[in-house]
Amino acid sequence: MKTAYLYALLALVIYLLYDNKRYIMSKSINNLAILGSTGSIGQQTLDIAGDFPDKFKVFALAAGENTALLTQQIKQWQPQLVYSPNNISIENDNKAKSMEDIACHPDIDTVVIATSGKIGLAPTIAAIKSGKRIALANKEVLVIAGEIITNEAKLHNVQILPIDSEHSAIWQCLNGEQAIVERIILTASGGPFYNYSPSQLSEVTVEKALQHPTWKMGKKVTIDSATLMNKGLEAIEAHWLFSIPFDRIDIIIHPNSIVHSLVEFSDGSVKAQLSPPDMHLPIQYALSYPERLINPRLQRLDLTKIDSLTFEKVNYNNFPCLSLALEAGKRGGTYPAVLCAADDIAVELFLNEQIRFSGISEIIDEAIATHKCIANPTLDEVIIADGWARDTAIQIAKKRNLCQ
Amino acid sequence: MKTAYLYALLALVIYLLYDNKRYIMSKSINNLAILGSTGSIGQQTLDIAGDFPDKFKVFALAAGENTALLTQQIKQWQPQLVYSPNNISIENDNKAKSMEDIACHPDIDTVVIATSGKIGLAPTIAAIKSGKRIALANKEVLVIAGEIITNEAKLHNVQILPIDSEHSAIWQCLNGEQAIVERIILTASGGPFYNYSPSQLSEVTVEKALQHPTWKMGKKVTIDSATLMNKGLEAIEAHWLFSIPFDRIDIIIHPNSIVHSLVEFSDGSVKAQLSPPDMHLPIQYALSYPERLINPRLQRLDLTKIDSLTFEKVNYNNFPCLSLALEAGKRGGTYPAVLCAADDIAVELFLNEQIRFSGISEIIDEAIATHKCIANPTLDEVIIADGWARDTAIQIAKKRNLCQ
Repeated sequence: MKTAYLYALLALVIYLLYDNKRYIMSKSINNLAILGSTGSIGQQTLDIAGDFPDKFKVFALAAGENTALLTQQIKQWQPQLVYSPNNISIENDNKAKSMEDIACHPDIDTVVIATSGKIGLAPTIAAIKSGKRIALANKEVLVIAGEIITNEAKLHNVQILPIDSEHSAIWQCLNGEQAIVERIILTASGGPFYNYSPSQLSEVTVEKALQHPTWKMGKKVTIDSATLMNKGLEAIEAHWLFSIPFDRIDIIIHPNSIVHSLVEFSDGSVKAQLSPPDMHLPIQYALSYPERLINPRLQRLDLTKIDSLTFEKVNYNNFPCLSLALEAGKRGGTYPAVLCAADDIAVELFLNEQIRFSGISEIIDEAIATHKCIANPTLDEVIIADGWARDTAIQIAKKRNLCQ
Repeated sequence: MKTAYLYALLALVIYLLYDNKRYIMSKSINNLAILGSTGSIGQQTLDIAGDFPDKFKVFALAAGENTALLTQQIKQWQPQLVYSPNNISIENDNKAKSMEDIACHPDIDTVVIATSGKIGLAPTIAAIKSGKRIALANKEVLVIAGEIITNEAKLHNVQILPIDSEHSAIWQCLNGEQAIVERIILTASGGPFYNYSPSQLSEVTVEKALQHPTWKMGKKVTIDSATLMNKGLEAIEAHWLFSIPFDRIDIIIHPNSIVHSLVEFSDGSVKAQLSPPDMHLPIQYALSYPERLINPRLQRLDLTKIDSLTFEKVNYNNFPCLSLALEAGKRGGTYPAVLCAADDIAVELFLNEQIRFSGISEIIDEAIATHKCIANPTLDEVIIADGWARDTAIQIAKKRNLCQ
């Protein structure tokens, strides 16, 4: 009998340890792989790593075109592993063959996916299959392959921790709640042109579009914020991250960018997460979760210094990209991949001053309209749809004489 | 060996069941005792019980002076147990000797303390000692005997669930958080006189003071809201409920009464709970926790229909009651009991049009200044301090010729 009690006790101890696994894990050093380290999120992730050298180690870096900055980062952070598609001087021992190689390296605990576009897809899947903690900033990964990614994550019992400020807010509001979610309310700053008329919108310049009122971000996402495409992509991301149907996702305009998003529960109670607009906070939270770390870098919110917090309904008529995104998300299949790829091309054409601001939605609209959707696509089918949409978007721009 | 494994399994099952105890409990019917059933919170608690007859049973009622309404409630709800200090027709089998008797009745699951003043003290302690779930609306219980109550609650492993909208908000924001709380930010509507000058404040009439801009409440708490005493009492309540020092409790004016309170965590992230101002929601949450129930009675929040949410610093100069309360809370001992009792008398004198609005703080100020505080008081010492403060407050009013 005594042995039996001992076994029972042992079982309990094991259960309790297992239950606190993440907490215990978070006590030791967290080896980070930062994919897309030269982008805005990548750089800010390095800031956070530098703020807590006893908690985070920059184990691996990967970046694309900005080789000058990557070289500088390698010098500063001395990572064990580096991937670059370009020729840069990395010692042979430290060279990784690909981002996937980094994502599944046994010494890495957390993979920060701070790439953009479909490039993050393969490393995300590799990281999931290796059971890594994933901090995801590259929203297109979930937009174009949400079903594939979330199924893999379930299969490997991996939680995808969001870095986007809106999704971090929702995640924080859901913390500890067993209740049914009635609505997720994504806030949108509205971008620089929220009060523009349709005719003003068609005359928007690249320079103006790059001046976001509250957030400092990369060029692509800044334009996506100006068209509200970004909010549509976020709705699709939220749909997959939080398993919530689109009819329970609302979007409201909140020009202050203080309330990062809200969750309404079944009893009507609403929880919101607020902070000054600074991506360092959601990045740090994804890295430190379930802990929260004191960081002097993070500014404190003083609501009494803010005139007022305002909220408005979205003017869907003026921002067709948002409706296109929501519709593509609802229809699913390869539509979101086409949406993303066509948007990528259209934004590039706009940034190169080849098309007008209003041309962005026109290109996406026609690409989606002519696409033959595949339901429940494989990863290959998603990639094929992406390629098709890129070619098609360029053809549409030419055909319609959108290019100036 | 097989037996050993069976024992281990059994231990695990028992642990898991224990872990989910509250959840499982919440599946069966919840027998309620509503102490103070004829007050504003008591009546709204009955509304909620009536909304979910398969979840809540009104097992016991107790009320003070409003015998007409109590008689009506008995007829409607057919409780098993009733307590009234007055002569009302109750069948002998259903008569309780006291509120304490009700609070420790073995068939009762949840005791709703919706009384006011020190009257809730004894039944709260009885309920704690019997291990009941306690839903507390009677804030004076924690204000005057916070240390005694929280020590007892710890000893008997009882959680005190707040009904006050501010504390419910904080509690909801703390849900699931392991992180250190940096600040609790209590919001205050500011009451009807927030923009009054000191001279205007001294001329305030009872009629005007009873017109609260956003909440419908009893007379005493409405006047306490107008003097901001109520917010001071809430700060003391929060101090005990959430074990948080006073220098980490902030108060801000939020005239909309939509954001019911906020919590700032160690990383600077702020969580807030929002809803239209309606006490039915925090009452229901305290009864249904950790579940949330769908209730058509509870209005949904639409932020786009609100002009803007505003927040201001507190003008402590114009509202001396608030500073008096915070100071009494910080100094502790019998000071908060004296604060509450003197306020009770002062508000009564004001409601009877015997003193001016500004006389309320003058009486409390002098009562506290002349009090000989006892540190770590027993319950008897708290009650004695209360009695002393009541006599003293009347004497002060007479001596100062405050009475008109």
